Amino acid sequence: MSYPKTLSDLIDSFSKLPGVGNKTAERMSFYILNMDDEDIELFSTSLNEIKSKIKYCSICHHITEDDTCEICKDTTRDDSVLCVVENIKDVIAFEKMKNFTGKYHVLSGAISPINGIMPDDLHIDTLLKRIQSGLIDELIFATNPTIEGETTANYITRLLDDESLKITRIAQGLPMGSDIEYADEITLTRAFEGRREI
Amino acid sequence: MSYPKTLSDLIDSFSKLPGVGNKTAERMSFYILNMDDEDIELFSTSLNEIKSKIKYCSICHHITEDDTCEICKDTTRDDSVLCVVENIKDVIAFEKMKNFTGKYHVLSGAISPINGIMPDDLHIDTLLKRIQSGLIDELIFATNPTIEGETTANYITRLLDDESLKITRIAQGLPMGSDIEYADEITLTRAFEGRREI
Repeated sequence: MSYPKTLSDLIDSFSKLPGVGNKTAERMSFYILNMDDEDIELFSTSLNEIKSKIKYCSICHHITEDDTCEICKDTTRDDSVLCVVENIKDVIAFEKMKNFTGKYHVLSGAISPINGIMPDDLHIDTLLKRIQSGLIDELIFATNPTIEGETTANYITRLLDDESLKITRIAQGLPMGSDIEYADEITLTRAFEGRREI
Repeated sequence: MSYPKTLSDLIDSFSKLPGVGNKTAERMSFYILNMDDEDIELFSTSLNEIKSKIKYCSICHHITEDDTCEICKDTTRDDSVLCVVENIKDVIAFEKMKNFTGKYHVLSGAISPINGIMPDDLHIDTLLKRIQSGLIDELIFATNPTIEGETTANYITRLLDDESLKITRIAQGLPMGSDIEYADEITLTRAFEGRREI
């Protein structure tokens, strides 16, 4: 004898989540058993609707419930500055920062031949089209400071070689609150390279 | 701009779970976005059904999808030995052990005046009725080795003072793989008290 079927199904579902083992899944499921009916219903409904309601913006590939996302729709934002990011979560991170007023382009990944991700798998074609429209003055590469992120930024920059476009890369250096003593060599090198007059 | 509503609802739901902060809830929700439709539907359905389908056994108060749980229904199990536990999860733990063939009684808690849990809040009345039926020969107290668990076992034992019933308490001592050096005094005392000839 083990758990009743509904409960073991729920435990199975929870244990499929990242970072959730069987023990945690059990704890979560028992917690659900004691939750308010309303809360459980909301949980169940949002799970049910997530795939059908969440779409990708036809312009920037960010998530949205419409054809176009809130950021692309926002006419108060600057159309001439485009921030190129790898993932949806990066958009969310920059939006939390609250002082970027341009628009985004989500590549949905980074070039990584070792993982089978080639340029064609990314939203580079739609990015080139947006640039060709002539509305964009500055392209800010905010791909991750990793081999893949750097490769992707370099690859796209090379495609744009003959365009009269300002292309920038977000700064790399020591993160706030970090300790120079424990920083790695590459970070320190980049911090030196990127030094500015004060 | 933040997340589309369905997604932020899902994040909210996940963050209500024990041990899940906002970052983890975000990670889980994004993971769901990339899950198979079938898996999501099963997750949603089991959440939806958990409250309506899961009931408590009318005999032992363990969880079940029927009126009586699988353990109480099992005629191959020994009706004369009753293991008294605090919670449903304790039944599961003992069942994993696989060598107890008696039946259970779930008290649904332990006496704890400081948390407002009094004897009347526990399933002691149904336990007494089961004992009065005369079918039970041995009562094994498997409440937790805590003040509350001990108090509960002692309280019920006192109620049964005049019954001709074997009453036992599961052994306390050093857990497997532990280190005597780091064991607390009470555990060591109990381990000494409970020593057996080899």
